[in-house]
Amino acid sequence: MEIDIGNALHSVATPGVSRETLERLDERVADAHDRIGTGIDGREHGYAALALPETADAEAIRTAVDPIDCEALLIVGIGGSALGAATIADALDVDIDVYTLDNVDPEYTSQLLDSLDLSRTALHVVSRSGTTAETLANFLVAREAMESVGVDWTERTLVTTGGEGNLRALAERHDLPALDVPAGVPGRFSVLSTVALPVAALGGGDVEGLLAGAGTEAETLSGSLFETPAYAYGATTYALAERGWTVNAMMPYAESLETFAEWFAQLWAESLGKDGVGQLPARALGATDQHSQLQLYRAGPRNAMVTLVRPRERADVTIPETELEGLAYLGGSSLGGLLDAEFEATEASLAAAARPSIRIELERVDAHGLGELLYGMEAACILAGELFSVPTFEQPAVEWGKRAARGLLGGGEFEEARAVEEKTRLVID
Amino acid sequence: MEIDIGNALHSVATPGVSRETLERLDERVADAHDRIGTGIDGREHGYAALALPETADAEAIRTAVDPIDCEALLIVGIGGSALGAATIADALDVDIDVYTLDNVDPEYTSQLLDSLDLSRTALHVVSRSGTTAETLANFLVAREAMESVGVDWTERTLVTTGGEGNLRALAERHDLPALDVPAGVPGRFSVLSTVALPVAALGGGDVEGLLAGAGTEAETLSGSLFETPAYAYGATTYALAERGWTVNAMMPYAESLETFAEWFAQLWAESLGKDGVGQLPARALGATDQHSQLQLYRAGPRNAMVTLVRPRERADVTIPETELEGLAYLGGSSLGGLLDAEFEATEASLAAAARPSIRIELERVDAHGLGELLYGMEAACILAGELFSVPTFEQPAVEWGKRAARGLLGGGEFEEARAVEEKTRLVID
Repeated sequence: MEIDIGNALHSVATPGVSRETLERLDERVADAHDRIGTGIDGREHGYAALALPETADAEAIRTAVDPIDCEALLIVGIGGSALGAATIADALDVDIDVYTLDNVDPEYTSQLLDSLDLSRTALHVVSRSGTTAETLANFLVAREAMESVGVDWTERTLVTTGGEGNLRALAERHDLPALDVPAGVPGRFSVLSTVALPVAALGGGDVEGLLAGAGTEAETLSGSLFETPAYAYGATTYALAERGWTVNAMMPYAESLETFAEWFAQLWAESLGKDGVGQLPARALGATDQHSQLQLYRAGPRNAMVTLVRPRERADVTIPETELEGLAYLGGSSLGGLLDAEFEATEASLAAAARPSIRIELERVDAHGLGELLYGMEAACILAGELFSVPTFEQPAVEWGKRAARGLLGGGEFEEARAVEEKTRLVID
Repeated sequence: MEIDIGNALHSVATPGVSRETLERLDERVADAHDRIGTGIDGREHGYAALALPETADAEAIRTAVDPIDCEALLIVGIGGSALGAATIADALDVDIDVYTLDNVDPEYTSQLLDSLDLSRTALHVVSRSGTTAETLANFLVAREAMESVGVDWTERTLVTTGGEGNLRALAERHDLPALDVPAGVPGRFSVLSTVALPVAALGGGDVEGLLAGAGTEAETLSGSLFETPAYAYGATTYALAERGWTVNAMMPYAESLETFAEWFAQLWAESLGKDGVGQLPARALGATDQHSQLQLYRAGPRNAMVTLVRPRERADVTIPETELEGLAYLGGSSLGGLLDAEFEATEASLAAAARPSIRIELERVDAHGLGELLYGMEAACILAGELFSVPTFEQPAVEWGKRAARGLLGGGEFEEARAVEEKTRLVID
C-alpha cells in the first residue's frame, strides 16, 4: 500500500498541512507508535487487532467450515459482524453467493429467504455477546424458514461468538461448528479474524494471502509517519480534520472496493467520532460519483477531504472503435484507461480548487492487496485515535438508543424509552 | 408524505431553529414559491421538472418499451441517467432483473456482461448529449458483447436522449425505439420522465401510480412552509445548514429505499454544493448504520443532521418464540416492530444529544408513496436552492475534471490535463 499525501500539503490545499506541521506531528507519532506497540505486544483490548496477522489461525477456520457444503452463504450479523465479511466477498469475488442479513427489514428478510435455495445455503451467525437483538431476531427467522422447508439448520450453521452466552450454548447444544471471537478485538477491527475470514475459506478465497498482506503492512509500522504508510494516512487525516476538514470521502476507483468504503465508514465513524471530534466518512465510488458528489466536494462547504483509492493493475477491456461522432478518441482506448484518466483528473480538479485529497494505491485488488489495505486502515485509525485522544475502541453513544429500543419492546424498564414518548412534534402534512 | 421538524427546533437541538426563525423564513418561502410557480408555468430550465406529473407521457413510454421482450434490463447511463431508474427498480421490486452500468470499471463490466444471458437482456442507453464518455464507452462494449454471442442489439436497445447527437443519429440509423429527454429537465431531476420511468414500464411497475403520487405532492405546494411538506423540509435543512449542520445524513429505515438515498445524495450535492455553501449528503441505512454511523452522528463533530425516513405500513415477519436466554422479549414481536422501535429510539437518542433530525413518513413504499417522496425531495431541493441563492440546475465544478480527463485520453488539447502531470507528490511506501 502506497500513500501519497502531496495534495494535502498547504502548497496545494487551503487550509493544508505544512511540512513543518508534519515534522512536529511526527514526534507525537513516535509516542503513539510506542503506545500502539505496547498494546500489540500485550494483546491489549483493541490493539490486539493489529496482532491478528500473527495470531489468526487460518487452519482452525478451514477446519470449522470444512463440514459445510453450500452454494450460498447467508451472514447473519450487524455492523462489524457483517461488514468485514461482505468486504472480503465483494473484493475477492468468492465462488459462492454471499448475502447479509444485517438489518431487520421484514420485507427484505422475507424476500431474501424466499429467493434462496435453503437446502444449499449455509448460515454464519456472528455476535460476540450472543444477544444482539437484530442478529438474534434474524437468526430465529432464518432458522424457522429452514425448518419450514425441511432443511436441518444444524447441519448448515456456523457460529462465531464469545466464550459464553446464547450462541455458545446453542452451538454446544446442537454440536454446531463454532469459532471464538478473538480476545481483545472489537467488531469493527475483526475483519482479519474468525468473524470475517470464514467467507473466504468457504468461497475459495485466499485466507493466507489476506493475512500475509496484513502482515506485510504490519512490518512497516515504525515510529515515523514518513516511513509508515498507515501512519502517514492517519496523521494527515487527523491534521486535516483539525483544520476543518471534518468529512473524509472514501472514494475507491474499483467496484470491487465499494463495500470496503462501507467497512471503512464504520471503522472511522465509530472509532473516532467522540467528544465532538472525529471525521464523518462519506462513502463514495469513482468514477460514478464524479457525476453525483464531485460538484459538492469541489465547490460546497470547505469541510470535505477526499481519499482516492485505486489498484495499479486490473484486467482491462478494450473500447471498440466507433463511427460515433466526437467519440473516436475513446475507440481503441480501454475502460481501465478511461477510469485511470478520470481518477487523475478528479484528483487534479480537487487540487485546482485547493481542496485536499490523499491517494492510496495498491498493486491490485487481490487477497494480498486487500489484506494490506484493511490492516493499513486499522493501523491508521488507531493512530488517529491516539492523536485525537479519544477512546478508539469504545462506542458509548450508541448505548442510549439500544436501551430505548429495548424498553420500547418490553425488554425491561428503561427511562430512555420514556423520552421517545415525549418527542417534540411539528408536523407538516 | 408527512414531515416532522419537531426535533430540529431549538428547544431540542443546539443550535436549532426557533419558531420565530421559521416564521421569518416563511416570508422568503413565499417569494421563492412565487419564483418556482413562475418557473413551473413557463417550463423554465430546471423548474420544468416540477411539471412532470402533468407533462410526462406514460403512454408514450409504454409504447416505446412495448416491442422489447426481456428478463433483464441493463441501464447504461451515469449520474442522473442511472440513479432514478435504479431507485425505482429497488423500491418497487419490479419483475425483471435490473443492472446498471454506471461506472467504467473494466472488471465489473466484463463480469456483469459475462454473467447475463444477453439474448434475454435489454439495454436502456441514457445520455442527453449522446457524448457522455463513460456511457458511450460502456454502450460500445455492451453492444460488442451482444454481437459476439450473435444477439441482434438493435432489437433489444432502447435509447433516451436529446433531439440531436450521437445517440439520436444511432437510433434513427437502426430504427431503435427512442424517447426524448424532456426539455428543461436536468438529469438529477429526471426520475419522473422518459429517463427513469422505462424501467417501471418494462418491469410491471405502476408508472401512472408514480406520477399520481408526484401529482399529489405537487398539489401541496403553497406559499408557506407550514402547509407544504416539501418546503418544510427544504427550509428547515437550509436553516440548519446555515447554523453549521453542513452534513445531511439521509437514513431510510427500509432496504428498498437504500438506492433512494443514493439518488437523494446526487440531487442534494450537485444542486446545492456551490460557492462554499450546501450540505453534504451522507448515505445511510437504518437500522444497519446504528451499528456503524450513529456513534459519530451523536458524538462526533457537531455538523451532521439526520433525516429519518420510514413507511407507516409494511409487510411484517413475526419473530419466533425462543428458548434463548434474555431474548424472550423478542419472541412474538416482529421484525417490523423491532425496526420501528429502533427508528424511534435513534431519533430520541439524537434529540437527547441535542442533535437535530427530521422525520419523513410515507404511508407505504409503493408507486404512489415513492412518487410523493421523489417529487417532494425535488421541490425541497429547489426551494433550498432559492434560499441559498445558488444556481440549482448547474454543476460547473465538474467541468474542469471532464476537460482534464478528455485531454489525458487524447481527445483534444486541454490545459487542465497538464495540471495532472504537475501533481505535487509526497509518497510514503
